[in-house]
Amino acid sequence: MAVLARSILVTGSNRGIGLELVKQLVEMSDPPEHIFATCRDPDGPRGRALHDLADKHPSIHVVQLEVENQSSVKAAVAIVQSYLEGKGLNLLINNAGVDTYDTLQTVEQQEMLCTFNINVVGPILVVKEFLPLLKRAAKEAETEGMSCSKAAIINISSKLGSIAQGFEVMLDPFYAYRASKAALNMVTACLAVELKGDEILCIAIHPGWVKTDMGTEKAPLTVQHSVQGILKVLASLSSSSTGTLLDWEGRRIFW
Amino acid sequence: MAVLARSILVTGSNRGIGLELVKQLVEMSDPPEHIFATCRDPDGPRGRALHDLADKHPSIHVVQLEVENQSSVKAAVAIVQSYLEGKGLNLLINNAGVDTYDTLQTVEQQEMLCTFNINVVGPILVVKEFLPLLKRAAKEAETEGMSCSKAAIINISSKLGSIAQGFEVMLDPFYAYRASKAALNMVTACLAVELKGDEILCIAIHPGWVKTDMGTEKAPLTVQHSVQGILKVLASLSSSSTGTLLDWEGRRIFW
Repeated sequence: MAVLARSILVTGSNRGIGLELVKQLVEMSDPPEHIFATCRDPDGPRGRALHDLADKHPSIHVVQLEVENQSSVKAAVAIVQSYLEGKGLNLLINNAGVDTYDTLQTVEQQEMLCTFNINVVGPILVVKEFLPLLKRAAKEAETEGMSCSKAAIINISSKLGSIAQGFEVMLDPFYAYRASKAALNMVTACLAVELKGDEILCIAIHPGWVKTDMGTEKAPLTVQHSVQGILKVLASLSSSSTGTLLDWEGRRIFW
Repeated sequence: MAVLARSILVTGSNRGIGLELVKQLVEMSDPPEHIFATCRDPDGPRGRALHDLADKHPSIHVVQLEVENQSSVKAAVAIVQSYLEGKGLNLLINNAGVDTYDTLQTVEQQEMLCTFNINVVGPILVVKEFLPLLKRAAKEAETEGMSCSKAAIINISSKLGSIAQGFEVMLDPFYAYRASKAALNMVTACLAVELKGDEILCIAIHPGWVKTDMGTEKAPLTVQHSVQGILKVLASLSSSSTGTLLDWEGRRIFW
């Protein structure tokens, strides 16, 4: 595969889809120059697998980043900027998120707010703070139109956040999770509209139901297979894709 | 118009669409027996118009209710229950909500959380606590299927919360508001699925762009005209409408 992007940042990259994205990115035949692998607590026990991977690949920079904490996001921007040495950030993958499972009987205010904070407000704070670097990347590019190699924001969402198709997957309500992903889909569309003039591509991706800590062992899809699909989709994106929700095989999902 | 419902609760009923709903309900040729008109601060200066109306119509019961405060919602349930004397509540209109106007540059974490809390978590808390009364109403009804005269939840949403059609209205991003209304639309769909077995109808309504404090004077639609439309739509609803988003003239809006 040709180079996807010179510089890529992935949030929530210590496990699951985030960790696999970093793994497959670094193993590409033409890998990115800089992979910023961020997570909440890289130096804790849950950051070990990421650190082990980074130890073998100097292009991986492990960066502490709590998506819902603005000062943590700002500190991460400063670190990323120091590595980029005046260049822009091409690809931002908002992957960090939480799963919640509730019904009307069990749904709780604090859990709804916390889920919304991490899954929706978090990506906005990250985009807001990294926007100057994304805009710089878009300006540096000598190509017309939009692509992940130029400047793009990818929000890892879920088909469960689709009102039109999310009940095809299962009927469970999962109020907090579904509401947060529907809101994230809307945020993706808003970003696509607002950043169109800057030629920054914005899409939401449904990674499928994947065997991860979140997806559990019951899931039909391996994380390797899902991430292979996602990276293929990302490489194929152009201006006509911006503002859409696609699955890991590039199929359009209605809102 | 025939009786819409024996008992109706409207949140945020001290002004705008909420106040007009109460006005037109009480003026129907066959008005509801009980109209529970709730708002955050009925005894403050912003509750005066509602109190003036209630003074003329004994079927209007003004009840204090802060949608995002669970103990306030529980207290309101107790008051409503005492008026209903063992009967159920037929129609719950989640009208209370806030408007916010932002761009990526001005959007703020606390405003997003606060908007989500009032516009999304609030309606869930209200439904959760009033659910036993709605279920009772559904059971009391001697009719098959769903209707507002039997048991229904109406969430006042907005076309701006539609990802598919909300940018036809205007291109402004309004992250906090649009995300909250997209999430409320999802919650409506979840409620429709979860409460189908109880034969409780759940829809979201776009009231149009209305001349209110929120909509400003620039809006093309009077609040009287919008509410006339909404009440006509409510009277027409059946099982086939549950889980949809309709505008004040009954037209379907895609998610």
